[in-house]
Amino acid sequence: MRTYCPTCAAQIEHRVPSGDDRPRDICSACGEIFYDNPRNVVGTIVERNGAILMCRRAIDPRRGFWTLPAGFLELGESGFSGAARETREEANAEVDQGELFAMIDITHIGQIHIFYRATLVSDYWAPGPESEISCFIDEQDIAWSQLAFPSIHRTLTHYFNDRRRGYFEPHIETLERDSWQTLGLDRDPTPNRHARC
Amino acid sequence: MRTYCPTCAAQIEHRVPSGDDRPRDICSACGEIFYDNPRNVVGTIVERNGAILMCRRAIDPRRGFWTLPAGFLELGESGFSGAARETREEANAEVDQGELFAMIDITHIGQIHIFYRATLVSDYWAPGPESEISCFIDEQDIAWSQLAFPSIHRTLTHYFNDRRRGYFEPHIETLERDSWQTLGLDRDPTPNRHARC
Repeated sequence: MRTYCPTCAAQIEHRVPSGDDRPRDICSACGEIFYDNPRNVVGTIVERNGAILMCRRAIDPRRGFWTLPAGFLELGESGFSGAARETREEANAEVDQGELFAMIDITHIGQIHIFYRATLVSDYWAPGPESEISCFIDEQDIAWSQLAFPSIHRTLTHYFNDRRRGYFEPHIETLERDSWQTLGLDRDPTPNRHARC
Repeated sequence: MRTYCPTCAAQIEHRVPSGDDRPRDICSACGEIFYDNPRNVVGTIVERNGAILMCRRAIDPRRGFWTLPAGFLELGESGFSGAARETREEANAEVDQGELFAMIDITHIGQIHIFYRATLVSDYWAPGPESEISCFIDEQDIAWSQLAFPSIHRTLTHYFNDRRRGYFEPHIETLERDSWQTLGLDRDPTPNRHARC
């Protein structure tokens, strides 16, 4: 919510512009209309010898929980180039050959989480500044309740299901606020999990 | 580009925040950081008796050119619910059963255009306020150079190719600035095309 116009510093009004059907931030002086839209979070699923590249978060939110490398898409990036950059930043891993795998609408927070299957280019990885650990984890070693976000849980579930049946395809779905409970994600991190990492 | 802080009206600085790697808008007084990210445009491909629901734009940009029903995704919507809303607004058509069909990164304008195949629910359509015409057009009647945007051209091309070979799958690609020339889109609308509509 804006209070002042970023262009002329006059007071912002919150009302429906003519010809529109929902309230926007509008400058009371210069009339400029400011729009807010959902943001895209982009990430990767990278497999090596059957295990998946995961990171334990060193930053809030969900510090200490496990995630796939992912972050906000930036201006100037394609979805996959953003996902590859996040993989480089969070796990120091170089990937290419992205294939869209999951697109998860999370309407109550105004985000779309988009994951690409990708191939590790060089045999190197290490935690970046936003990760405590980054390593490859086998399916049977994943501590599901210690995952950072519902979208990570759903994406990994789809991934292992697809791998078992022998082919991958894109998965599109919407997650609601109650998915945190439905999927049983813990409130607190337990540092001893994923000890094999 | 912001000049004034929307929260406190002080001057905005454009610099790289600590721990970040690209310039952001930062308030010189309160320190708030403002992020700008790509926006999603969502739309539908709706088929009826082999023809595709299209609209001639009544508004700029590209007024007078032909498009699939599409527009900016709003906060609180899933990708497909936004696409269905745009189809209602621009063509007064009710659709459901969305299947992701195309996701086109257009990095030089900071947009992702996402199209869903969808099913017409009731046998009614009519132009909304942003359309001069809305109607179903057969493949052989499409005036390709009169399409509104490169992403429409690419999405329709993929659609007819997939239809010919007998199955549909999602298409992910990036369009560059030169796609306008490469795809041969006209600079001016020619009102007499699509006369069968």
